[in-house]
Amino acid sequence: MIHIIHGIHPIHQALKIHPSPIRGITISRGRDRGSLAEILRLAKERAISVQWADRRELTRMAKTASHQGIVAHMGEFRYAEIDEIVQRWESTGEKALFLIVDCVEDPGNLGGLIRTANAFGVHGVVIPKDRATTITPVVIKASVGAAFHTPIARVTNIAACLEYLKKRGVWVLGAEAEGQCPIYDCDLDADLAIVIGSEGRGIRPLVKRKCDFLASIPLRGEVTSLNASVAGALILYEALRRRLPGKGSHDKAGNPRKGDF
Amino acid sequence: MIHIIHGIHPIHQALKIHPSPIRGITISRGRDRGSLAEILRLAKERAISVQWADRRELTRMAKTASHQGIVAHMGEFRYAEIDEIVQRWESTGEKALFLIVDCVEDPGNLGGLIRTANAFGVHGVVIPKDRATTITPVVIKASVGAAFHTPIARVTNIAACLEYLKKRGVWVLGAEAEGQCPIYDCDLDADLAIVIGSEGRGIRPLVKRKCDFLASIPLRGEVTSLNASVAGALILYEALRRRLPGKGSHDKAGNPRKGDF
Repeated sequence: MIHIIHGIHPIHQALKIHPSPIRGITISRGRDRGSLAEILRLAKERAISVQWADRRELTRMAKTASHQGIVAHMGEFRYAEIDEIVQRWESTGEKALFLIVDCVEDPGNLGGLIRTANAFGVHGVVIPKDRATTITPVVIKASVGAAFHTPIARVTNIAACLEYLKKRGVWVLGAEAEGQCPIYDCDLDADLAIVIGSEGRGIRPLVKRKCDFLASIPLRGEVTSLNASVAGALILYEALRRRLPGKGSHDKAGNPRKGDF
Repeated sequence: MIHIIHGIHPIHQALKIHPSPIRGITISRGRDRGSLAEILRLAKERAISVQWADRRELTRMAKTASHQGIVAHMGEFRYAEIDEIVQRWESTGEKALFLIVDCVEDPGNLGGLIRTANAFGVHGVVIPKDRATTITPVVIKASVGAAFHTPIARVTNIAACLEYLKKRGVWVLGAEAEGQCPIYDCDLDADLAIVIGSEGRGIRPLVKRKCDFLASIPLRGEVTSLNASVAGALILYEALRRRLPGKGSHDKAGNPRKGDF
């Protein structure tokens, strides 16, 4: 199946990182080519055909008018295997940081999570095969191309995937509004997989049972929940912060200790 | 001008908190009334008229099909005055936490920021009159009704508003990807106004000049920026965390100190 992705940044990232699924590029006729110079250079270098069409034709293909005058025709998105993600982590020598996105249905939220995961140096993202959005063009756009950088595995069984990670010494933190442990008090000084559930229903029960602990973000307002992509970002931020030497990392008694990230 | 807001949660919040701008409610014919019981009770109590119409008619009014079978017809959104926001802060006896949203054009991002601001107990939000989205129905929906709880001021001149806050002892932190101070190292132990700029262009130069310091969130991936609503959430989280006694608050030498929030 051919997908269409649109916008200068996602297409530029795709050309740089994963050009092989790109079947061709279409540019709006009469469009100023100045900002496309790098894209045109990469397309030529990789022997990817470039065609020109009416702006309206691009809008029809992209199913939105916000395509910035450029679309790319892509084959299947290339998912990573869970083994690849683990090997990638091991090769860095860093403490593990994985993001498991359990059944997030909103493509903007999934793309936002992938963008933040990449910005914070997460080693890999895992999504389920069923009951969740896949890596669609909307997800890629919302990730501002991060979906081409951070490996994303798509697994049939998230619970089994967590078991696999736990056998490799990874601790599993579930983000839950009702979680018993405020995130400030959680021991994050470990190889970690962070599980984010869907906004309405949270983490599914079978997946939740695999979590070593459930962490909550203490709130103080009338609104009783955070957006899934914001909640995920806050927990990734906190995990990363605690790994930085001398930057507020502290043990349970509140004493600072050196991180070893 | 009459605005339409849609969805159970935003309308329920509007009825609870600011019913006066609601001119009437329209519900989809044949819709299950179970989940509307509380809305119908509040509308009756507040003498707000309820009408019934075809689902397609609601879709036309809401300009989206995701209205959950209910729309409300609203008069002008009630903005707060900046004085009201300052008084509200002073009445709490807490350290100030304000969010200044400089020219965020995406309504989803603005609504997301208002949602997070409310969840974290921010005393007030300020937006500019020009070159930014106003509090539209899309913003209200994205805020999951938080726009009715946290006071929002709309000012002609953000720079002058910052001067006004500074005269009251408030420090102004600008969130900037190029900011010279990593957020971990910023002294957040003060009455604070946090300024978030637009995703593409950041904070406007005249506003930036009023900031006491510019803070950045250190990133480690290929993606070199965060979504505006995520960046705002992270800085609010960090400010609030540092105010909690014994929860990782630390002075510049990395020693823990008690917060006084």
